[in-house]
Amino acid sequence: MKFAALQMQSVPGNVQANLARIEHAAIEAAKSGAELLITPELCITGYGAGDAITTLAEPANGNQIRALQSISRTNGIAIIAGFAERDGADVYNSAAFINSENKPSIYRKSHLYGDYERSLFKPAKPVNCIVELGGLKLGMLICYDVEFPENVRRLALGGVNAVLVPTALPAGPSGTFIANHMIQVRAFENQIFIAYINHAGADDRFTFAGKSRIAAPDGSLIVACEDTAEHLMFADIDLATFAASIGDNPYLKDLNPA
Amino acid sequence: MKFAALQMQSVPGNVQANLARIEHAAIEAAKSGAELLITPELCITGYGAGDAITTLAEPANGNQIRALQSISRTNGIAIIAGFAERDGADVYNSAAFINSENKPSIYRKSHLYGDYERSLFKPAKPVNCIVELGGLKLGMLICYDVEFPENVRRLALGGVNAVLVPTALPAGPSGTFIANHMIQVRAFENQIFIAYINHAGADDRFTFAGKSRIAAPDGSLIVACEDTAEHLMFADIDLATFAASIGDNPYLKDLNPA
Repeated sequence: MKFAALQMQSVPGNVQANLARIEHAAIEAAKSGAELLITPELCITGYGAGDAITTLAEPANGNQIRALQSISRTNGIAIIAGFAERDGADVYNSAAFINSENKPSIYRKSHLYGDYERSLFKPAKPVNCIVELGGLKLGMLICYDVEFPENVRRLALGGVNAVLVPTALPAGPSGTFIANHMIQVRAFENQIFIAYINHAGADDRFTFAGKSRIAAPDGSLIVACEDTAEHLMFADIDLATFAASIGDNPYLKDLNPA
Repeated sequence: MKFAALQMQSVPGNVQANLARIEHAAIEAAKSGAELLITPELCITGYGAGDAITTLAEPANGNQIRALQSISRTNGIAIIAGFAERDGADVYNSAAFINSENKPSIYRKSHLYGDYERSLFKPAKPVNCIVELGGLKLGMLICYDVEFPENVRRLALGGVNAVLVPTALPAGPSGTFIANHMIQVRAFENQIFIAYINHAGADDRFTFAGKSRIAAPDGSLIVACEDTAEHLMFADIDLATFAASIGDNPYLKDLNPA
């Protein structure tokens, strides 16, 4: 299966501009034969939009998700997009998986990073959100979640072939380390694919690391963006290519529970 | 505190030669001010000694450990060494922590890799083996154990500042990936030190990757051996140097249990 990933420059607070950017990418991705388009964390509102995020947050059956469903249907491509999800008085940092079915699958971020996120969102209890597409089982996490090996292991033990991670990774030494080492290790230690898709450029509050990547089960990078510009990237997801690594590193089978 | 680490060429089946090599390294390490010498997995018997390992296996109060205690006492340096531990009919792939106290602390490998190890050893139930030295809390794992994030996390939640890992990592793509990415990530995702000390060269059955390393809490390498020769290496273990990374990446505090 072919994945497309958009390292995206969101416009803080401008939902219409961000939906239009995703639509443009979805058209291009579908034309290239991709079955799924992955976009960054909170890309519908912008990650650094601050209090505007609270105002713009919508439920999972709101206009933003309906617009993404329309883009998905029109172009015949599934979409994963980060959005601010309102549920009564609570707002979650969520990602929606949208395909031809009527109901989106929603994952809510369980590990919030720092005061900025904690001032805006409620953390969710960590649970597996697993969807199926083209014969693959796909799990979702958001940004900081993937830095905790527990979250990826739980999905791998749940049978996923890939974990898809909208992110908002800031530039700096920790961000560089996470992009250069940790994403690959999460793939290798579970012998699955990890797609880690970041924002491009900067917004009012944050300068992003770029460096979106898709890591394969053997720890190699099949997408490795090394700059902070906008890019639409493609990767073929084929487990059979990595049979040797999966055989040599049977971590899920060999795990000896404490 | 100063650690010494010996990337060591063991002689398969020759316990006296291997003890003599460790004694030589302990003398040199102690002269350089190191308080601890770390050596590879099964370095007392050799990793690839095959069935001889079963014959040479000794209990934790046997001659091999007594010889190491004598080396430790004479030179005023603690030692971690991998040995084959006999316990009745069972043989474990173990590591001994030996210091000025009479009783060694023994860690038994919980995750055995492949048919070779499973034909020789019994796997232990995963447990924390934590010792104290110079104000630091030190945990032990052996080789394949450290590739499972669960084992390092359990020790980190147990309060260790460093995990010390005698290993026998073979050359090849998986070995290269583990040495170039995974050890650093284990350090970073727990904000602790990881010392990963491999065999040099080759024995009758295995060609080793070398690449012994000590990773710091920020994921940087403070020891990074890039070849497969014998080396005695040194590292200063100072948590204060990594205060910024420990503050920016509070994984243990932020972990949200499922």
